[in-house]
Amino acid sequence: MEKKLEDYVLTIPDFPEPGTMFRDITSVLQSSEGLNLAIKELEKVVKNLDFDLVAGTESRGFIFGMPIAYNLRKPFIPVRKKGKLPRETLAIDYNLEYGKATLEIHKDAILKGQRVVLIDDLIATGGTLAAAIKLIEKLGGLVVAVVVLMELESMHGRRALKNYPLYSILKY
Amino acid sequence: MEKKLEDYVLTIPDFPEPGTMFRDITSVLQSSEGLNLAIKELEKVVKNLDFDLVAGTESRGFIFGMPIAYNLRKPFIPVRKKGKLPRETLAIDYNLEYGKATLEIHKDAILKGQRVVLIDDLIATGGTLAAAIKLIEKLGGLVVAVVVLMELESMHGRRALKNYPLYSILKY
Repeated sequence: MEKKLEDYVLTIPDFPEPGTMFRDITSVLQSSEGLNLAIKELEKVVKNLDFDLVAGTESRGFIFGMPIAYNLRKPFIPVRKKGKLPRETLAIDYNLEYGKATLEIHKDAILKGQRVVLIDDLIATGGTLAAAIKLIEKLGGLVVAVVVLMELESMHGRRALKNYPLYSILKY
Repeated sequence: MEKKLEDYVLTIPDFPEPGTMFRDITSVLQSSEGLNLAIKELEKVVKNLDFDLVAGTESRGFIFGMPIAYNLRKPFIPVRKKGKLPRETLAIDYNLEYGKATLEIHKDAILKGQRVVLIDDLIATGGTLAAAIKLIEKLGGLVVAVVVLMELESMHGRRALKNYPLYSILKY
């Protein structure tokens, strides 16, 4: 029987912390069929949107955002951890489940009014994606959609991003 | 006049350390034409190789490796920083210009005899790529080529990887 996308996702208990069920995307990428299904499903959603740029957060957003940007002939804007981007940046501090983090974006990466699709592997609480959205909006960008491979529904990320269309391929 | 790939690469003096001329790939990605040229040039090299898997190191290797893996219908193996991969890993410590670092790979990511193309944004001293090669070889993989967008020739990375075919699109 043909394997479905969800069959490629391994679940790792107690990673990175006890009590967490980690949904592993590397097991998807490790198979050419799994990788192909994952990107194709994301691409199907994104290609129907009206947008100018793809953005993705370090580093799993790069994995899923770049193939889509390339195949749909759009630019890719990396939203990175502190200190990684070489030119003038805008930064935002935000809370993680375990501590704090900072995200940065290049100030010239997005022009006022440009339409941005934000792509990531997974949405849990939505904290990282909400921080990325704030950076994009501070530059004058419009977030037309957030597109993720996996959504952990029990963590209510959809509620945290309620003003933005959220598309997820797999729900847990 | 039509812009060439090299026209999209900005050079940032004194980043991340004084005296370093940083070749910025985000300025390439920030243009749909630049991004398209970069991936197309890498893809042209890779598609002529006989291989089973694409591997890339965190996180700029993900940016360039994933579109190639997707378009050539191959799996993608992420080589990550310490503590990021959820399943059983093999780790290697190596020296950076400024300090030390650890890379990890999933133990089941590569089968003995599988042929691997290692993709990255840039080769400088070749230290990170050499560490990734060691991990791949410890799993029994064969590194058939290293393919990078940019080569900093004065840093002699080609010498450090002398046993492996190295393809670079832009040379500085």
